[in-house]
Amino acid sequence: MEKDGLLIVISGFSGAGKGTLVKALLQRYDDYALSISMTTRASREGERDGVEYFFTTKDKFEETIERDGLIEYASYCGNYYGTPRAYVEEQMAHGKNVILEIEIQGALKIKEKFPESLLIFVTPPSAAELKRRLEGRGTESAEMIARRLARAAEESEGMGAYDYIVVNDNLEACVEELHGLADAARRAPVRSQKLMREIREELQGFRKGAD
Amino acid sequence: MEKDGLLIVISGFSGAGKGTLVKALLQRYDDYALSISMTTRASREGERDGVEYFFTTKDKFEETIERDGLIEYASYCGNYYGTPRAYVEEQMAHGKNVILEIEIQGALKIKEKFPESLLIFVTPPSAAELKRRLEGRGTESAEMIARRLARAAEESEGMGAYDYIVVNDNLEACVEELHGLADAARRAPVRSQKLMREIREELQGFRKGAD
Repeated sequence: MEKDGLLIVISGFSGAGKGTLVKALLQRYDDYALSISMTTRASREGERDGVEYFFTTKDKFEETIERDGLIEYASYCGNYYGTPRAYVEEQMAHGKNVILEIEIQGALKIKEKFPESLLIFVTPPSAAELKRRLEGRGTESAEMIARRLARAAEESEGMGAYDYIVVNDNLEACVEELHGLADAARRAPVRSQKLMREIREELQGFRKGAD
Repeated sequence: MEKDGLLIVISGFSGAGKGTLVKALLQRYDDYALSISMTTRASREGERDGVEYFFTTKDKFEETIERDGLIEYASYCGNYYGTPRAYVEEQMAHGKNVILEIEIQGALKIKEKFPESLLIFVTPPSAAELKRRLEGRGTESAEMIARRLARAAEESEGMGAYDYIVVNDNLEACVEELHGLADAARRAPVRSQKLMREIREELQGFRKGAD
């Protein structure tokens, strides 16, 4: 049980600092592997195919859906985003905790399909801080910022479905906290099924022996 | 939010080593306070009134129930066990995590009344190890051991209702693990209600401002 990797879904408001956080976690610990999403959205400046995303066409994305090559997919702002199955399964079999950085729609689908997955929601300490960070980027129009904040308001309704809500205030502390949550999560009953089953069966066995 | 103490319920099979574990946790960290149960069972050798338990009579116990002086109570093997309310509330208000070492019936009542309470189940690594520990005590009859194992078989059916299941194999490691779980638990949505509410309201406010 201890050796199986976890499937960890990390979501959070656009501007919460998920990307930086996940990068720091991967750099600090060997226990994690990052799943790279496939998307039909256009690449932004500096994004490389196969690093931030696998960029693809709508047709090819739909082909991949057809052959069950994605463990989840969703559309967001008119584009497809999905998680290729092969890499996730391979890394988990090798004991790595595989991180999916996906939005809430995808996260909830993952939880439904894989109840033992771990859902973590990352948020800045407050909405005011979120707004400040989005404005501070200086790369986006006022309209896009308003759109992201509106989206955040919607997403905030779904936070309660996550296993943990992490406040990303201090990067170092937050990386340690994420690592601690992955540890703690292994002790939840949903991820201790084998242990519980074995103990129950053994105890039943004693009882039968005593009758 | 960070400052409120948690209500931590620790249960586990008789022989799982809960008592030793809790004692070590209290010795190592200032963050915890131990709730002392009230019981009508006879004291065992070495047990002191007000330390291991408050020992009382059936009449006085029932009087305490009447005046709502217990946050939960249950009967187990023909005796009453209950948790006096005043101490728990006082310690939590001072930011201490209050530990209740109670059995499963009481634990489930606590969870129902206080959904934000943290339920931890302590188990030896296997049922065989549990049996070995019970026999190793050398203080109990074969009949009592069989009774405890039968009770453990019943209790094992309820393990899944706990927040975490902790394997008590190595005392030191287990103390650290408990401490980590108390930290992690604060990030669960059920214990982050205030944070979620504030963020939602603030984000809704931005949206209204933008319309």
